[in-house]
Amino acid sequence: MRAAVFGGPGSIEVAERPDPVIAAPTDAVVRVVLGCVCGSDLWYYRGESPHALGPIGHEFVGVVEQAGAEVHGIAEGDLVVAPFTYSDGTCAHCRAGVTSQCAAGGSFGNNGIDGGQGEAVCVPLAGSTLVRVPGSGHADETMRSLLTLSDVMCTGHHAAVSAGVGPGSVVAVVGDGAVGLCAVIAARRLGAERIIALSRNPARQALARAFGATDVLVERGEEATEAVRELTNGLGVDASLECVGTGQSVGTALAIARPGSIVGVVGAPHGVDVPIMDAVVFRNIGLRGGVAPVRIYIPELLEDVLEGRIAPGRVFDFETGLDGIADAYAAMDERRAVKSLLRVGTL
Amino acid sequence: MRAAVFGGPGSIEVAERPDPVIAAPTDAVVRVVLGCVCGSDLWYYRGESPHALGPIGHEFVGVVEQAGAEVHGIAEGDLVVAPFTYSDGTCAHCRAGVTSQCAAGGSFGNNGIDGGQGEAVCVPLAGSTLVRVPGSGHADETMRSLLTLSDVMCTGHHAAVSAGVGPGSVVAVVGDGAVGLCAVIAARRLGAERIIALSRNPARQALARAFGATDVLVERGEEATEAVRELTNGLGVDASLECVGTGQSVGTALAIARPGSIVGVVGAPHGVDVPIMDAVVFRNIGLRGGVAPVRIYIPELLEDVLEGRIAPGRVFDFETGLDGIADAYAAMDERRAVKSLLRVGTL
Repeated sequence: MRAAVFGGPGSIEVAERPDPVIAAPTDAVVRVVLGCVCGSDLWYYRGESPHALGPIGHEFVGVVEQAGAEVHGIAEGDLVVAPFTYSDGTCAHCRAGVTSQCAAGGSFGNNGIDGGQGEAVCVPLAGSTLVRVPGSGHADETMRSLLTLSDVMCTGHHAAVSAGVGPGSVVAVVGDGAVGLCAVIAARRLGAERIIALSRNPARQALARAFGATDVLVERGEEATEAVRELTNGLGVDASLECVGTGQSVGTALAIARPGSIVGVVGAPHGVDVPIMDAVVFRNIGLRGGVAPVRIYIPELLEDVLEGRIAPGRVFDFETGLDGIADAYAAMDERRAVKSLLRVGTL
Repeated sequence: MRAAVFGGPGSIEVAERPDPVIAAPTDAVVRVVLGCVCGSDLWYYRGESPHALGPIGHEFVGVVEQAGAEVHGIAEGDLVVAPFTYSDGTCAHCRAGVTSQCAAGGSFGNNGIDGGQGEAVCVPLAGSTLVRVPGSGHADETMRSLLTLSDVMCTGHHAAVSAGVGPGSVVAVVGDGAVGLCAVIAARRLGAERIIALSRNPARQALARAFGATDVLVERGEEATEAVRELTNGLGVDASLECVGTGQSVGTALAIARPGSIVGVVGAPHGVDVPIMDAVVFRNIGLRGGVAPVRIYIPELLEDVLEGRIAPGRVFDFETGLDGIADAYAAMDERRAVKSLLRVGTL
């Protein structure tokens, strides 16, 4: 089969890879229909984080081609969404709802596991990992939204859930990438009354508003903090969603949070050197979040996608085939695109 | 009146101070019966944190001598517990349950407010701050426990509540000072099944066990982490209570926490330089806590003290009168005492 491989910083290309085969009875082989590039893929692309050379990509939807003898609930021909981490569903962490820390788990496109940016993937622990999509003949718009359930939509949702967003909440979203935009959808879906999006990019601002943002702020750093305080009677927001992971974004997310509230943190941290404990102790700000337990969230969000109540697939504003993978990365790296879609196979 | 005053690092003495008088109609003057020294008092005593020269101490129980015209619910002659911060009970933060961040509030023994280590205190916002103790003729043991409601018992409780301790929880308490010992009481009271106390001091270990600790570990740092993991099938604890505030204690509290759990943080941070965001994101560990909203917690804990269900007053293992204040500080500074009680007046 053909799949994208990482050859070192700045180098992504398509190469021939062995066709996936079932090795364990709990494996399934999935033929990828849609894949995409994640903001976190840019870290190794830019040389800012290490990544093994070889297959990459951790988000995909596809059709089950073959299922091992011990794969239950998933059958050949099923359209499935893959969470970006696989999990057994039975270990203590899975039972506690933290499938992203599964004792037997791991992520796609790493440690010898096929990547989602390729024609096919051998999925470990397939029965407890993949989520079957009911129905057939889904519209392209629906398919794009289903793909976001692999990661960004569920990750934005995790930020909102971790921060305790509920009916009437006043929420701020720090970060206008795909995860931040999905966090706006999630906050709206959970009943937030006011959603303040921090963005200075017109196209992303428009998308944030379309997804439910009631206010958009272009300020950054201390000016952003002041602007949010002005919008909230000096109190700060009930839930601050950190969807970037830099020192400045974490600092802002903490500063705009109301005492007693929780900052929902999903941005992978890079060089965060702000005095976090001071905020936790002296301002009574909590932090929760982390690598999203996507598998837990897919079922409820899937229903909303299929019913057309949410359309997170709108975050894809660039698309290409597998052959265009290098440009898919470059478009995001250069901020020409929020998120790049890869059309790999057909339904 | 006579009151302890801070004269600079290492210098605490008793001096004549003006008798408190009612300045605002919401003030009340309280004659102090019992006061004490807090672990946090040692920070300025040791010169590690700044503190204005003058009155000190923020924990006391006493009898209302005079109440302003707008003080409701509290009358002359009432025995009262003072939370270490005063609050109006009506601002947005108070209504959200975070009285420690009251917009009109502050703490005793600072910014021109009388300290609790003295014969009398003019209490601002007295009606919404002081908590009346029902009954009369309370035993000395009860009085000592009532005094802990000013700070340490409620602060330990805040750590446990923030970390979500409930029936069946497996809890670890990092810190064997008065707050850590009270956190053991709180965890037990909230139904924890297993309580692991980290302590290498025999007297404190014994008290931790008397308060409900099921396991005591003498290890520190990485060895403590390994020991806790061994006790918890490699998973970590459901709730980790950080009651110290140093880099090592915060690091340990994070490392022993189970993915998906919350570290209850109440130790005032001093030089914490551990990678907190890495734990929050890559291990799914939450943090909550901060300066305890003591006023919120006193009523329910007061009932347990009066009914004899909890005896946090046992943390006092040194006592003296106001004249012995310098020794009260020195005993704690030299770790001869867990917590020093001051007998100031009579009931």
